[in-house]
Amino acid sequence: MPELRKDPVIGRWVIVAEERALRPHDFVVAQDEKTGAGFCPFCAGNEAKTPAEVFAFRDTGGESNGPGWKVRVVPNKFPVLRIEGDLGKRAKGMYDRMRGIGAHEVFIETPDHETTISGLPDEHVTLILSAFRERLLDLRRDSRLAYGMLFKNVGLSAGASLEHTHSQLIVTPVIPTRVCEELAGSKKFYEYRDRCVFCDILDQEFSVEERIVLVTDRFVAIAPYASRFPFETWIVPREHASHFETMTWEAMEDLAFILKRTLFRIEEALDHPPYNFMIHTGPMQSGPLDHYHWHIEIIPRVTKTAGFEWGTGFYINPVPPEAAAEFLRKTAERRGGETE
Amino acid sequence: MPELRKDPVIGRWVIVAEERALRPHDFVVAQDEKTGAGFCPFCAGNEAKTPAEVFAFRDTGGESNGPGWKVRVVPNKFPVLRIEGDLGKRAKGMYDRMRGIGAHEVFIETPDHETTISGLPDEHVTLILSAFRERLLDLRRDSRLAYGMLFKNVGLSAGASLEHTHSQLIVTPVIPTRVCEELAGSKKFYEYRDRCVFCDILDQEFSVEERIVLVTDRFVAIAPYASRFPFETWIVPREHASHFETMTWEAMEDLAFILKRTLFRIEEALDHPPYNFMIHTGPMQSGPLDHYHWHIEIIPRVTKTAGFEWGTGFYINPVPPEAAAEFLRKTAERRGGETE
Repeated sequence: MPELRKDPVIGRWVIVAEERALRPHDFVVAQDEKTGAGFCPFCAGNEAKTPAEVFAFRDTGGESNGPGWKVRVVPNKFPVLRIEGDLGKRAKGMYDRMRGIGAHEVFIETPDHETTISGLPDEHVTLILSAFRERLLDLRRDSRLAYGMLFKNVGLSAGASLEHTHSQLIVTPVIPTRVCEELAGSKKFYEYRDRCVFCDILDQEFSVEERIVLVTDRFVAIAPYASRFPFETWIVPREHASHFETMTWEAMEDLAFILKRTLFRIEEALDHPPYNFMIHTGPMQSGPLDHYHWHIEIIPRVTKTAGFEWGTGFYINPVPPEAAAEFLRKTAERRGGETE
Repeated sequence: MPELRKDPVIGRWVIVAEERALRPHDFVVAQDEKTGAGFCPFCAGNEAKTPAEVFAFRDTGGESNGPGWKVRVVPNKFPVLRIEGDLGKRAKGMYDRMRGIGAHEVFIETPDHETTISGLPDEHVTLILSAFRERLLDLRRDSRLAYGMLFKNVGLSAGASLEHTHSQLIVTPVIPTRVCEELAGSKKFYEYRDRCVFCDILDQEFSVEERIVLVTDRFVAIAPYASRFPFETWIVPREHASHFETMTWEAMEDLAFILKRTLFRIEEALDHPPYNFMIHTGPMQSGPLDHYHWHIEIIPRVTKTAGFEWGTGFYINPVPPEAAAEFLRKTAERRGGETE
């Protein structure tokens, strides 16, 4: 019998329909074709082919926009939002619109074309996270900007247009709908119980254990109770914090450890699926929030969203999160331990 | 300069970023591979290979579950929800869940494997719509059921697992999130202005004309102001009505005419793209609503949704709806008139 599960933060329903895992087309991992060799603007030596960098970690003595960098941040060559101008909020009849003010930056995570986050040394992953923090802290000084969404697309069918490992930051002049829902849902919970809903979720997950994938001192990777997608995994700080960008260096080292190993397990378990991750953090112009709890959502793209999902906002997940978590826990064991 | 547009019903923001249409990967129409000949359970003569039909239009004298049908409705062989049992609402710690009670039916739109809605005679399309109405009217008698979503998936990448033209109905025991948002948004508008937001949208669209694709006596096809996807098209009844299933036969004939021709234009314009359509109607157990207005949303799947869209609920649309509507208006002209 399929089961309906409700997300405790935003109230979204998910249908966990295990029997449907048997349908041939529902659970095929689409192996994206490699677009092959060719020219890559993100490789070392091709720095002139991107817009000028806004931030980089590089070896001592290296010059801006030359080689020698470890992580490099550049504006997107095809930005969906631009930093220049005022918002120009206005109405056209009954419709509201504003200019596309914001920022769109690309984090080139390593000069090496052949690797991914799960193949990089822990210290290097910490640098990537640190570049995320740096850019958010810099951009929040601009009071026109409301929200920064950090995300990563891996594989053509997850929306990546370049193979070379990279992530992106899009900063918007309004708080996005999805984030508003999370903020409103967690606020409602807080007003009723005087506790953070995410902290309560972690308490419950630690007490039942069945959806835990990996634990470190400061973070936990879980398969959320109302997972929308097979092998959806969230990484959540164990201690309450509303904003990613106010994390300490020590926390980033711990996050690098768990993020890398979680991605490794997903890649191993599903044979390198296309995936996205998104960092859900608090709004840029707000101070620390008692009711909101930042986290990372990782969604492997192994099922297709169809008319039903688009029309209802319901999701059909053929893999119970308990089974996914168990499989991911055993993945590392099967491979005889962790990556490296 | 990109532009941010807000959907007047649910407040969702869309970034219309025309410049990005130039990016090679953003606007490729993924031609789905035909899975080819092989066995098709939806073809005439194979009626025994599906679950027993719950409804059919057939020639006089034809027997149930034999050939001679024109439109045939059967339970989905792999249902995401099942009709048997009680809801069993309960909590598990802080989490809410219930049994997957509901219905999942498949509408086999014609015995002919090779055609689609746009290739069928108008009278046949009316029969399909009439089968939709019939099933909704029958299922709403079950008071456990809250909402019926009719939808169609065309093409593998839009989630279709069988080529033979068909649509589906999933009936859920709760009103889905996306529908709640529409109901809440339109109710808020109604309380403030004493008018239906969709009726106001149509007024404005008729006065500016630039986003109108096609008009009939009773319906209009428009490219919505805050289109999420390139060539997104909505078909909306011109006279206020909250429920699809209370439509008259005459209205269904008119809807068949405009639906078929709108789909034809989208297929011609984008070279037979994968697409979904969803019928947004009022909740099953409610009477007529002054604030809600049923409609059909058609979304061609020519762009990929990536981390940014999943994380924020913002959409990036590289084709302004005004340009899409103009292109669709001209599509019919270029082809020397309508289908048939």
